[in-house]
Amino acid sequence: MPQTVVMKFGGTSVGTTERINAVANRVSEHIRSTGDRVVVVVSAMSGETDRLIELGKQAGGCGNKSREYHQLVTAGEHASIALTAMALESKGQPAQSLLANQVPIRTHEIYGLNLISDIDVEKLNALLDEGIVPVVAGFQGVGEDGSFTTLGRGGSDTTAVALAASLGSCPCFILTDIDGVYTALPSICRGAKKLKKLTYEEMLELASSGAKVLQARSVSFAHKHRVPLWVASSFSDDEGTEILEEYEGMEDAVVSGITCRVDEAKFTLRNLPDKPGIAAKLFKALGDAEVVVDMIVQSQGAGGNAAISFTVPQEDTSAAEGALKNLLLELPEASVEVDTDIAKLSVVGEGMRTHAGVASRMFEVLGSEGINVEMITTSEIKISVAIQAKYSELAVRVLHEAFIQSSS
Amino acid sequence: MPQTVVMKFGGTSVGTTERINAVANRVSEHIRSTGDRVVVVVSAMSGETDRLIELGKQAGGCGNKSREYHQLVTAGEHASIALTAMALESKGQPAQSLLANQVPIRTHEIYGLNLISDIDVEKLNALLDEGIVPVVAGFQGVGEDGSFTTLGRGGSDTTAVALAASLGSCPCFILTDIDGVYTALPSICRGAKKLKKLTYEEMLELASSGAKVLQARSVSFAHKHRVPLWVASSFSDDEGTEILEEYEGMEDAVVSGITCRVDEAKFTLRNLPDKPGIAAKLFKALGDAEVVVDMIVQSQGAGGNAAISFTVPQEDTSAAEGALKNLLLELPEASVEVDTDIAKLSVVGEGMRTHAGVASRMFEVLGSEGINVEMITTSEIKISVAIQAKYSELAVRVLHEAFIQSSS
Repeated sequence: MPQTVVMKFGGTSVGTTERINAVANRVSEHIRSTGDRVVVVVSAMSGETDRLIELGKQAGGCGNKSREYHQLVTAGEHASIALTAMALESKGQPAQSLLANQVPIRTHEIYGLNLISDIDVEKLNALLDEGIVPVVAGFQGVGEDGSFTTLGRGGSDTTAVALAASLGSCPCFILTDIDGVYTALPSICRGAKKLKKLTYEEMLELASSGAKVLQARSVSFAHKHRVPLWVASSFSDDEGTEILEEYEGMEDAVVSGITCRVDEAKFTLRNLPDKPGIAAKLFKALGDAEVVVDMIVQSQGAGGNAAISFTVPQEDTSAAEGALKNLLLELPEASVEVDTDIAKLSVVGEGMRTHAGVASRMFEVLGSEGINVEMITTSEIKISVAIQAKYSELAVRVLHEAFIQSSS
Repeated sequence: MPQTVVMKFGGTSVGTTERINAVANRVSEHIRSTGDRVVVVVSAMSGETDRLIELGKQAGGCGNKSREYHQLVTAGEHASIALTAMALESKGQPAQSLLANQVPIRTHEIYGLNLISDIDVEKLNALLDEGIVPVVAGFQGVGEDGSFTTLGRGGSDTTAVALAASLGSCPCFILTDIDGVYTALPSICRGAKKLKKLTYEEMLELASSGAKVLQARSVSFAHKHRVPLWVASSFSDDEGTEILEEYEGMEDAVVSGITCRVDEAKFTLRNLPDKPGIAAKLFKALGDAEVVVDMIVQSQGAGGNAAISFTVPQEDTSAAEGALKNLLLELPEASVEVDTDIAKLSVVGEGMRTHAGVASRMFEVLGSEGINVEMITTSEIKISVAIQAKYSELAVRVLHEAFIQSSS
């Protein structure tokens, strides 16, 4: 039965005009064969956002929180949406491109992040009613004062999910250059296999811990609004991976996927006086500097002194160092060490809710390869560890063998 | 005394980030030294619009009347305004970039042309009151349905003049890569000199007949709204050319400027029956095809047959041929010839209102060089002739010597 669906194509899928034509073919064939009402979301052509940011730097500055940064980078989708709409029209499929302020997709700012507050679907529905495909700019929104805003790297996924949510929680297809979500990165791990189904929570944990296939925020958005979500290839008709609330046998496999990220930096503060309030001061200072802290380990040192380790995104390293400066002035004994050669390795799976012993097995497997676990953090369905970066590929492979290949 | 002024920079002036920084320096120094409230208008970086159009062609079509054509090419200024605003901010001058739909600059369509119907100056004035320079996208508008529209090649001039008109007919500076309006193209005519002043009507005639320094439409807009207009260099402090209602001694020189354009095609229809209504039918067919006819000559042929010659823009040649097809079916005797090797040469000057004999002197000068005049058309302050294109540079030089160098 014909339905409304959102199809999102990433930067690689619209990276050349040849690919844009392929996207247009895919969309118009889908409409011809199903009768679906399709809303298309596209990112900027791959490389375009970086080109614009480079020009911005040359024009004297491109701080990614400035109004003009957002005004500038949104020019990328301005071109790609029009090109995609043109390609659709040339295939006989009426289409209209829409920038964020032409929909509009309204955002508000919270702690420096732009969140979608409201999407007006009146225009979209009017176009769909006329058989016209709206081609909406991903990644961008419009702020309260009419300025462009952006939703962060990978923000087009969130645009797509938010549109699907606003259109009555219709199905949302994230079409990309890989054909689904894998148990591990196939380029590292030859035994990696495509997952047919994942829960929102599994996908969220995978996305937050390094799987680049989807922006994490889009997954929580989809979960909250019960948007049926698929990750599939732009260029084949393979089914891809379905992301949903729950599926039969979802706890059979203990671990669904293994991810790794190497973009964090580990700070270690030693010789801290072991008294209340130090940790609070530390993390308040980091919070004030808008640095997001990920893993934290606090340990008792010798002679009544304490040590605290934590990780932050590498791009926030200097912001974090700045935030620590004043605190360190008050604590002349303390020392700080920064290590950017760390990897954060995560195993994720609904099965971990019911299966115990995953952490100990993980340590055992890593230990048998001589890999030291420096930090650890867990959620109900995830265990993450920090290890030395040079071991990251090896660690992914041995964990994949132990938890996934051995159980299938 | 501080005043509001509009400063417009063309594509060459913002063609690189280095030049954008130079523009930002110029604007911020102007503000520092005068205290003026400045609105900046910029075009797309030179080459960018063509790059977008080429991509559009590759995406299956880029008809310049389609909605998506306008949506696409307006991406050019989307980037340049943000870069210019960034460069201003990096010089310590607060600035905000504005796309046409962020101002908004509203347009309506008449005979396929988008005309500015209304500019909302509330936001501009609010920014100016706060000491923020609005950097407005030239060339673009927003249509009644919220889609982007464009104002034609050179349309940024019209944007600038329209903004100046809306801001109380404040002064408008068109800053470009040449330092003013010249009596003829200096690259053809070494004796060409910069004009200090011109009337709106002279400028309009020069712009419509080949002087590329200003979009003709912007001049009539400026005239209608009494916007004080200057054409000057982006990169020097020279005074440039002032365009105004009238100036002392404006009729002293018979001819103010000589222009030439080689972008027209001449159609000649022969063996037309010499009866009423043929010309009407012909020009109605051309009008229906949205072909703008420039010069027209009708002549009596031998044996009661008539001939009609007319010129159209070369880009409309095939549209004109299409429009003639049906008419020719009704007139089996008639023949049609198309000549694209023609040049249209114009001499313009307020002095022609009072001085007679310009046309005869013009024919004399051209004739003495063996240049045949094929068509002629006149206004109160202009005489244009069609000649063979190969003589165009020579003709400009001899007319410049006869009318301008000899009289100064």
